[in-house]
Amino acid sequence: MVNIQPMKVFMEPRSIAIIGVSRDTGEDSFNILENIMNHGFSGKVYPVNPGVDQILGVKIYPSVADISEEIDLAVIASPRSTVLKIVRECAEKQVKGIIIVAQGFGDGDDGGKALQAEMIEIARESGARIMGPNSLGIANSSCNLNTSFAPAKLDNVPVGIICQSGLFPPGPPRLVLAGKAIDLGNACDIDVCDGLEYFETDPDTKIIVLYIEGIEQGRRFIEVAGRVSKSKPILALKSGRSESGRKAAQSHTGSLAGNDQIYDAAFKQTGVIRTTDIEELVDLTSAFSSLPLIKGRRIGIISMSGAGGVITADACQRHKLKVAELSPGTLVEVRRLFPPWLAISNPFDAWPAFQVSGYPYAEVVNNALKLMLSDEGVDGVVCISGIFGKEEFFDPSPAIIQAVNTFKDKPVVCWLYGNYADTAAKLEESGKVGVFPSCERAVNALARLREYAEFLEGNPSLLRPVFSVGYK
Amino acid sequence: MVNIQPMKVFMEPRSIAIIGVSRDTGEDSFNILENIMNHGFSGKVYPVNPGVDQILGVKIYPSVADISEEIDLAVIASPRSTVLKIVRECAEKQVKGIIIVAQGFGDGDDGGKALQAEMIEIARESGARIMGPNSLGIANSSCNLNTSFAPAKLDNVPVGIICQSGLFPPGPPRLVLAGKAIDLGNACDIDVCDGLEYFETDPDTKIIVLYIEGIEQGRRFIEVAGRVSKSKPILALKSGRSESGRKAAQSHTGSLAGNDQIYDAAFKQTGVIRTTDIEELVDLTSAFSSLPLIKGRRIGIISMSGAGGVITADACQRHKLKVAELSPGTLVEVRRLFPPWLAISNPFDAWPAFQVSGYPYAEVVNNALKLMLSDEGVDGVVCISGIFGKEEFFDPSPAIIQAVNTFKDKPVVCWLYGNYADTAAKLEESGKVGVFPSCERAVNALARLREYAEFLEGNPSLLRPVFSVGYK
Repeated sequence: MVNIQPMKVFMEPRSIAIIGVSRDTGEDSFNILENIMNHGFSGKVYPVNPGVDQILGVKIYPSVADISEEIDLAVIASPRSTVLKIVRECAEKQVKGIIIVAQGFGDGDDGGKALQAEMIEIARESGARIMGPNSLGIANSSCNLNTSFAPAKLDNVPVGIICQSGLFPPGPPRLVLAGKAIDLGNACDIDVCDGLEYFETDPDTKIIVLYIEGIEQGRRFIEVAGRVSKSKPILALKSGRSESGRKAAQSHTGSLAGNDQIYDAAFKQTGVIRTTDIEELVDLTSAFSSLPLIKGRRIGIISMSGAGGVITADACQRHKLKVAELSPGTLVEVRRLFPPWLAISNPFDAWPAFQVSGYPYAEVVNNALKLMLSDEGVDGVVCISGIFGKEEFFDPSPAIIQAVNTFKDKPVVCWLYGNYADTAAKLEESGKVGVFPSCERAVNALARLREYAEFLEGNPSLLRPVFSVGYK
Repeated sequence: MVNIQPMKVFMEPRSIAIIGVSRDTGEDSFNILENIMNHGFSGKVYPVNPGVDQILGVKIYPSVADISEEIDLAVIASPRSTVLKIVRECAEKQVKGIIIVAQGFGDGDDGGKALQAEMIEIARESGARIMGPNSLGIANSSCNLNTSFAPAKLDNVPVGIICQSGLFPPGPPRLVLAGKAIDLGNACDIDVCDGLEYFETDPDTKIIVLYIEGIEQGRRFIEVAGRVSKSKPILALKSGRSESGRKAAQSHTGSLAGNDQIYDAAFKQTGVIRTTDIEELVDLTSAFSSLPLIKGRRIGIISMSGAGGVITADACQRHKLKVAELSPGTLVEVRRLFPPWLAISNPFDAWPAFQVSGYPYAEVVNNALKLMLSDEGVDGVVCISGIFGKEEFFDPSPAIIQAVNTFKDKPVVCWLYGNYADTAAKLEESGKVGVFPSCERAVNALARLREYAEFLEGNPSLLRPVFSVGYK
């Protein structure tokens, strides 16, 4: 009796039992009940602890069996030795979904592996589904639910994460992406494909982010990921690439990390965009959230600094993009902005143009952006600007925002330096411009957008991509 | 009549003439005279402008010839068309060093290239040396001098920059590294080797950073860089690697960027540490400023997150480092910190150890760090921590700082997540720990430290490296 959409009981439960609620409350007690209440979950919550009557003014049940109401989801947060007994009680109570927090099962010794096998057996018989063990459970901003013991910043962003780590829901720096998050832990039952199928039909989710250490059902993954990525981009960090990494993954989530070349091939085939580390995963989540897909590999470069133009041209080649050749019509216009002795047009060296024209620097960027984006030979633009002195004089953000609102099908990415914080905030606020901490990372974002666009172009589907211009 | 140490007149002039001082003053006027005064240069300053008597209360001279005192350095900030005439006047006045700000010479059309050749001729005859054209000149925190029109943050850090771009002195994000900076511009006379030789003997400079687009005197570079890097590490970003980058470099500084493989080989031979982009250059400047050189490639990993351990193990392999095998003695001690079902020891998974021990998390990190750093099989450590809730409970910074003060010859690098800002600040303040925004970048820093250490080991020199443990 397996649900067609098993993830709904985990992601949108009407009632939750929390087994193993601690008496300790307040900061640093990491009390799951308190955390769920603080986040403002509006469904029913039944805390269980055999030795206590009340915690935080809430009635505590001695056992799952003592709860008379129906339970969608149980979060088992008790020590490893007690887990199996509680899983059995949940199965008897006809609980539909079970999250197991404790470690030391498939990720542990032989005893732990046997316990994990046994709990799967129990669940199969009752029809319950298990998330974990070794899982913090789920976070869902649309119903203010976070089953972890740690507070998370739940923001209504259109990004769904599926991970095998508690690292992601609370969030690495800049990674406020957990609109919805699923921590698979050891993935003994609910696995990455269940998560993908949930996000496939979830209207709030436009981009899917994976952190995985191993995938057991390879054939199903290729089928599901290949289908899902035609409508929603999937960005993945797959670790356990190295021998030491594989050993560490085995001990972390019991995952068989497998041959990395097979994963690489599977990701290519299914259009999954693979990243090297967390920082790149965050970069690309930001890029795919805010930028239109890029229609080709021809890049325009506008730089306040000549060096920035040279460095960006190099980065384009490294990422198999081309520095665009401007059309003759554009060249005539561009040259008008420059002193007569300057031969180059792309990269567009904005400083001499500014010095010759006498116009405010932001005006020069405005002109250059319009020329580049109007050119049919340019598919996207990298804009490099330093912000100094009076902000309005150098601030290119109004020009850039106007340009992306006019040329909606060409992505614009920026690297800013100097006193750039306010300008960066305005650009990010627009939700339509990519701001990156280096030329290299700005160019990489365009290259990976193109990689995904090429996957879509090679895989025309009746289902048009939900994914398009900026979501904000 | 060439000076043996020509750079001294540029870096430590007693008197400066500024030709082409603007009447505009105040913010966004980019007045060089005002900027030099604001920075507090204590030498003599002689501004020149034929049409004005006074600017900012300072006497203005109608021409260089009208200054009766001796002049070490002239900064020519007038338009391209006037430059040659002024260079001639400076030569007649026996000015020793000339900085030329204007663009449009070797970086411009044939007319510009001819002008550049002519000015070199004039200078050769008089014995004057030229920096530029297309140069912002120099910055030197030890005498509060910044010849640029843009304010710079002059901090007394032991880093000297030699660059072909105005981008570096004002500073990319996080790059407050300009203790001293030299902008070579087109490098028509003063070139990267002159800069290297200045920093070689400058007692304030411990690390040298290069941004270069082309080197004309290749043989001299190999000789000088190979010698200097035996006593001070040289970190380089050499752009113009791609065909488009080479074209852009030609137009930016008139540089012949040349065959990139030759540069790669030259850097390897001379021990110059090459970086891919500005962000990596900043990372490594920070790493080389604060960390001891690493004695081998065996890395210990301590991670709050199991995923962090797996990702870091992968990064080690990517950068040709090894996840260290701990010695039997260390293993016995490490296992004592863990639940019995957990088999792994390196990466050290700090969360289960914390949960089992019941000690504050910071205490667990403290124990793990001491064990790792005491092990003769470990050459350096990556420490990954999330900071949540009450700071002192999770904050690993006291433990880390104590450890690096005890084990001074093993570098410790960190990746932090969560509410990490205060912890990162404390670690950076210590000047002895590397804090990086990702595992990848933390591991890369160790790998590049090792690259330099191996160059030194293969090139024993009577001159011992000035470079050693953290400077702060």
